[in-house]
Amino acid sequence: MTALGTHVTDSQLINEVETALNQALADHLLAPKLREAMQYAVLGGGKRVRPVMTLRACEAVGGRRQDAIPAAIALEMIHCFSLVHDDLPALDNDDLRRGRPTTHIAHGEALAILAGDALTSVAIEIALDSPVRAADIARELAAATTAMITGQVYDTLAGFPGNLPAAERLRLVHDNKTGALIRCACRMGALCGTPDESRLQALTTYGESMGLMFQVVDDILDETQSTEHLGKAAGKDRDAGKLTYPSIFGIAESHRHVAHLLEIALSALQPLGNAAEPLRLTAHALATRTK
Amino acid sequence: MTALGTHVTDSQLINEVETALNQALADHLLAPKLREAMQYAVLGGGKRVRPVMTLRACEAVGGRRQDAIPAAIALEMIHCFSLVHDDLPALDNDDLRRGRPTTHIAHGEALAILAGDALTSVAIEIALDSPVRAADIARELAAATTAMITGQVYDTLAGFPGNLPAAERLRLVHDNKTGALIRCACRMGALCGTPDESRLQALTTYGESMGLMFQVVDDILDETQSTEHLGKAAGKDRDAGKLTYPSIFGIAESHRHVAHLLEIALSALQPLGNAAEPLRLTAHALATRTK
Repeated sequence: MTALGTHVTDSQLINEVETALNQALADHLLAPKLREAMQYAVLGGGKRVRPVMTLRACEAVGGRRQDAIPAAIALEMIHCFSLVHDDLPALDNDDLRRGRPTTHIAHGEALAILAGDALTSVAIEIALDSPVRAADIARELAAATTAMITGQVYDTLAGFPGNLPAAERLRLVHDNKTGALIRCACRMGALCGTPDESRLQALTTYGESMGLMFQVVDDILDETQSTEHLGKAAGKDRDAGKLTYPSIFGIAESHRHVAHLLEIALSALQPLGNAAEPLRLTAHALATRTK
Repeated sequence: MTALGTHVTDSQLINEVETALNQALADHLLAPKLREAMQYAVLGGGKRVRPVMTLRACEAVGGRRQDAIPAAIALEMIHCFSLVHDDLPALDNDDLRRGRPTTHIAHGEALAILAGDALTSVAIEIALDSPVRAADIARELAAATTAMITGQVYDTLAGFPGNLPAAERLRLVHDNKTGALIRCACRMGALCGTPDESRLQALTTYGESMGLMFQVVDDILDETQSTEHLGKAAGKDRDAGKLTYPSIFGIAESHRHVAHLLEIALSALQPLGNAAEPLRLTAHALATRTK
C-alpha cells in the first residue's frame, strides 16, 4: 500500500462503510422481516466501490471523511436496492449475485420488492442526516436514482426516443444505468467536503468518466470471463441480445475506450494534487479489474 | 358547498393537484416507457385524499396553498407507488384498481416495478423543490414512506415482534400502512404553512386520527360492499385471513371506533377556528364514505 502514502487503505474505508451500514440498518425502525431482507441485500459483500469513492472524493477536496459517511452509505443502499429489483424474475431474473442466492431467492419475491422499496426511502432519510448540505446531498441522490431507473428501463425494455443509432442508445443506457450513481458518488463526496465550484466540477468530470468506464469494463468482463469467476451469470447480456460496448465496437476498441476514459478521469484530478491520489489508484484499479 | 364558506371546493383543489401532477410527470427527464407507466399509475383517477389534505392543512395554519403544492403531489406519487407495488402478483396480486386494470396488467410487471421505484425517487426530488423547509418536507415524506412499507410487510407477511395480541398487531399494521402517509399529509401541509409548533401538533393529532379512521372505514367497506361498487376487489382481506377491525371487534364496534376517532380529530382542530373548516368537512366525509 505504499502508493497510498499517508492515505488510509481501501479496506479500512470498506470497514468504515460496512460498520456504518450495519449500524444504520440495526437502528432504523422497521418490521423485523423487512430488516432481515434489507440486511441480506446490503451486507452480503460487494466491492463498495461507490461509497468508498464518496469518502475519497470528500478527502480529495479537503473535506473530513466522517462528514461524507451518511452520503456514502445512503448511496450504497440505493445501489443495493437497484440490484435487488434488477434481479427479480420480471426483470433480469437472476438467481445468483455476489456468489450467493439473490434476495428474492433467499427471502421470497414479496420481501425482495419491499426491501428494495425501503432501501430507497431509508437511503433518503440517511442522506438527509448529512451534517453538511443535507438537502443538496438528498437532491443529488434522488436525481441519480431516477436516472438509474431510466437507464434500467432503456436497458431492459428499450423504447428509446426517436431513431437513435446503436452507439447513442448504448450511451443513454450506460450514462443512466451505471453512470448516474458513480457520478453521484463523486459529487456527493465533493459537496460534503467543499463549497468550491471548480473542485466540484473536477470531481463531476472524474465521476462521469469513471461511471462510463466502469460499465465498459463490466461489458468486457461479461463477454470474456466465466460465471464462476465473476460470481454472477456471465454472457447473459450477449445471450439476451442487449446492447453492450463489445457487441457494437468489438473487444479491442472497448479496451481502447477504457484507456481513453481513464485518461480523462486522471486529467480532471490533476489540480487536486496529492489529496486525490487514492482516486487515481481507484481509477487504475477499476480500469484493470478482472471481476 | 355553502358549508365551505369562503374556502375553495375540493374539486378545485383536486384540479390543482392533477394539473401539478401532470406537469411534473411531463417535465421530468425519464425514459418514455417509464413516463407512460408512471402517468398511468398516477393519473388514473383516485380520490386525491392525501394531497388535498396537505393543501387544506397548509391553509388551516394560515399558510399559502401554493407553497404546499410540491409536498402535496410528492405525497400522492408515493401513495400511487405503494398501490402499484402492492398490486403486484408477488404481493396482493390485484388485477383491478380504481375500476381499471392495475399497472402491471396494463404495462407489464417489469415496468410496474420500475415505475413504482421511479415514483419514489421523483417524489423525493419534488419534495426537495418545496419553497419552504425543503429538507424537513423530504424528511417527513421519506420517513412516512419507510413506515408505510413496514406496515405493508406486517400486513402481507406478518412477522410481528414478540407475542403481540391481535388488536396490537392490527394497530401496528394500520398506524404504518395507512396512517403514516395521512399523518404525513397533514404534517407536511402544516410545515409548509407555519413554523408554529402547537399548530403542527394539532394537525399531527388530526392526521393520526384520520389515518386510523381511514383504515377502519376501509376495513368496514371491504366487508360490506361489492367489488363493483368499490372498483376494486371486495372481501379480499377476509378471504386472505388478514387482520381487520371488523374481524377482531365486529362491525358495530368498528363503527363506534370511527365515531370516536372523528371526535378526536375534530377536537384537535378546535383552536384553528374557521381556517380548519374544510378539514372538519373532510373528517366527516371520510367517516361516512361508502366507497
